[in-house]
Amino acid sequence: METKISSKFIAELIGTFGLVLFGCGAAAVAGADTLAQTSGLGLLGIALAFGFSVVVFAYAIGGISGCHINPAVTIGVLVAGKISFKDAIVYIVAQLIGAVIAAFVLKTVLSGQLAGFTAGEWAFGSNGWGDGYQNEYSMTSAFITEAVLTALFLFVILATTSKVGNATMAGLAIGFTLVLIHLFAIPITGTSVNPARSFGPALFAGGQALSQLWLFFAAPIVGAIIGAVLWKTVYTEPKEG
Amino acid sequence: METKISSKFIAELIGTFGLVLFGCGAAAVAGADTLAQTSGLGLLGIALAFGFSVVVFAYAIGGISGCHINPAVTIGVLVAGKISFKDAIVYIVAQLIGAVIAAFVLKTVLSGQLAGFTAGEWAFGSNGWGDGYQNEYSMTSAFITEAVLTALFLFVILATTSKVGNATMAGLAIGFTLVLIHLFAIPITGTSVNPARSFGPALFAGGQALSQLWLFFAAPIVGAIIGAVLWKTVYTEPKEG
Amino acid sequence: METKISSKFIAELIGTFGLVLFGCGAAAVAGADTLAQTSGLGLLGIALAFGFSVVVFAYAIGGISGCHINPAVTIGVLVAGKISFKDAIVYIVAQLIGAVIAAFVLKTVLSGQLAGFTAGEWAFGSNGWGDGYQNEYSMTSAFITEAVLTALFLFVILATTSKVGNATMAGLAIGFTLVLIHLFAIPITGTSVNPARSFGPALFAGGQALSQLWLFFAAPIVGAIIGAVLWKTVYTEPKEG
Amino acid sequence: METKISSKFIAELIGTFGLVLFGCGAAAVAGADTLAQTSGLGLLGIALAFGFSVVVFAYAIGGISGCHINPAVTIGVLVAGKISFKDAIVYIVAQLIGAVIAAFVLKTVLSGQLAGFTAGEWAFGSNGWGDGYQNEYSMTSAFITEAVLTALFLFVILATTSKVGNATMAGLAIGFTLVLIHLFAIPITGTSVNPARSFGPALFAGGQALSQLWLFFAAPIVGAIIGAVLWKTVYTEPKEG
Repeated sequence: METKISSKFIAELIGTFGLVLFGCGAAAVAGADTLAQTSGLGLLGIALAFGFSVVVFAYAIGGISGCHINPAVTIGVLVAGKISFKDAIVYIVAQLIGAVIAAFVLKTVLSGQLAGFTAGEWAFGSNGWGDGYQNEYSMTSAFITEAVLTALFLFVILATTSKVGNATMAGLAIGFTLVLIHLFAIPITGTSVNPARSFGPALFAGGQALSQLWLFFAAPIVGAIIGAVLWKTVYTEPKEG
Repeated sequence: METKISSKFIAELIGTFGLVLFGCGAAAVAGADTLAQTSGLGLLGIALAFGFSVVVFAYAIGGISGCHINPAVTIGVLVAGKISFKDAIVYIVAQLIGAVIAAFVLKTVLSGQLAGFTAGEWAFGSNGWGDGYQNEYSMTSAFITEAVLTALFLFVILATTSKVGNATMAGLAIGFTLVLIHLFAIPITGTSVNPARSFGPALFAGGQALSQLWLFFAAPIVGAIIGAVLWKTVYTEPKEG
Repeated sequence: METKISSKFIAELIGTFGLVLFGCGAAAVAGADTLAQTSGLGLLGIALAFGFSVVVFAYAIGGISGCHINPAVTIGVLVAGKISFKDAIVYIVAQLIGAVIAAFVLKTVLSGQLAGFTAGEWAFGSNGWGDGYQNEYSMTSAFITEAVLTALFLFVILATTSKVGNATMAGLAIGFTLVLIHLFAIPITGTSVNPARSFGPALFAGGQALSQLWLFFAAPIVGAIIGAVLWKTVYTEPKEG
Repeated sequence: METKISSKFIAELIGTFGLVLFGCGAAAVAGADTLAQTSGLGLLGIALAFGFSVVVFAYAIGGISGCHINPAVTIGVLVAGKISFKDAIVYIVAQLIGAVIAAFVLKTVLSGQLAGFTAGEWAFGSNGWGDGYQNEYSMTSAFITEAVLTALFLFVILATTSKVGNATMAGLAIGFTLVLIHLFAIPITGTSVNPARSFGPALFAGGQALSQLWLFFAAPIVGAIIGAVLWKTVYTEPKEG
């Protein structure tokens, strides 16, 4: 009944590929004035793109790998004691590779067409803060936002997949949480809470996206650890094998 | 099998924290013209932020505390005879604390950046009526709106969690009800139906938000009691222990 | 185990009240420029308001009355042989009363505040066609649209609640169908597919809304009968008691 | 217990009819400035119209035919060994007929009213690329986009309906995937991933829509085969009868 680690690797790679393709893809085209009289996706469309991606892959690959598709989630689950250190490494490598492939496909398909997609100007495709990034929030605001939101994200993930949670609806609840996170944080950091999702675009965008990439590893990981600890204080469920 | 009251306290605090952070956070950034060509969240985005928060926490903490995250809900559930008076007090205290912390985090992260977020001008973050508040509806319209909507909210909450309801889908239905409530009432009162959600922002906004706060305690509580009584007239289910 | 007809009456009344309050309420405020920089609900918000109302009440009162909250649905279910003629009359009376009360509450709360809500100018609150109504579609277009959409609506309702359907998800699927119906037909007729939903607003709006009301009884009823017959041709399930 | 092939035929025809009616119908009216102050559906509304249609029919006809309503899906399912060649032909014929009827109904109802709906100017109703089509993406971008997205679509369809998937939520996850596909690809190709959905409108639009129709058969079919093969590499479930 145990799924092979190679299947888990492929599942996490495909899932993260899909998340970044749909999420950053929507972000890249959201502002495009594609048709006269028809409004673009807007921030709501981007938020739904990221969140629905998690819903979709939760039900598609949840039974294979648990559908982390996010290194911060894998680290939080590791802290909660629900994945081995060895498997966690495999997951994170798969997630980073999937995100890079997705960013490459986006670059190939969109390059030259959308102004917001040329290297260094990714707009929502890349995360950031300060001078020249959207509303120019401070680094402190960016860090707090990413850490607090990832903490809530991990709390919901661990709680809904607990014994007192609802196995059928967990995937929907977790995906909706990512919608909420984006509804609030797109104007602040472009919303990461996921180092892989920041890594792929930054690799091709370079410049500020690359030099600020560290925060979108550090803050989500700090938040994930806080979320996992918080969950442990509320939920005292019987040990699982 | 009985969950400890301390776990319920923490669960209600985290849930209300999340509701106010996501809901009022979305409201605060909704109008921001963050990117050229990309439209903001709009009223629909705010409505989904509040409603999806209930969906998410219903599945995350529903198994722990029932996920009230709203003093009016707790009072309605008390009238329906499904929570003890002592527990109800604990819940309400946790909800008020969670809301205040969320408002403090929002203030810290957003202050100085978004015009709509300075004290006294919270826009959607705070509730109100009359001179200087949005479309300047009358106090009577505000009270009727808040009371009727909270009555419907409690009716749906008690009905969907009844024996004839659907345990799997109840959380989704209840959250969607809060979406509906916001779709209609944001232009009228900014939509409360939740004293804790009004309390947090008002504390930091001061002024009119604070002086009008009483209505967002009184009307939702009146509505909650009506909703609970209404539910009793339709549902005559066997007593629960 | 049989629910009393008085409970069904109250359930249908409350459900239709909620549908008209949320749906027509959202329509009435959708265009309001309530806050600087924040866009209104738009057509998408109105469509979700009607559809989510059905989702919510399907799970709240579905176990009591089946949640028709629409005379055309009751007639289609009657044709499908799943409700008695006597109960159908009780349902329809409850639905019409609920719709009128909702329209009265809307009138009370909104009157004088929103331009689109004065008698005779209800905009989306009332249905219509031809000169002076939105895009001025022909009566033929209006009739075909209402009949075809109600036929699809009844087909989905009867199919998802069949033995081969999914009892847990039926309410969501049926509500989403009403979202779809509105996404397409708001610019054509304002979207009825529900005589009660047209009746309430028309009573207070008068004028063209009242003189054109017959079509929003006739077309949905014709469509409902077609949908029920269509369903019978595809589904040959064992008889139910 | 085996459903008759004639029932499957009718089910696929009705489902594809609904998908094209709701999806292309929403696309046709999305840009219409129907009411003063109320914004149209926008790209998000169109994306939800296509995706929710799949959700709805998945629960309505899933138990009858499996709800393919898309020739590329039927071909992918054929490659996965889950449908016979003979049945696949019947399904595809039903899908093409359903799409043509829907396009005819749309033409009848909307013709003359909406500028974007006259033959040769269908806007979102028809798919395309290059000179004169929206943002004028290259044929290569169009092909890659359609193939990659259909591959992901089939992967999710086959994964969520696998033994490790969740039977209750599969329909929702599959429909949300079509939402995601549209959120990203409407500005590129108008989004097909479904030869039948392109066929119906192109037949009435003629011109460029007809001469470019081959790509919206070729690319989705190539993608569907890739998706089915990909799924086989990850999922090694026991054979089904």
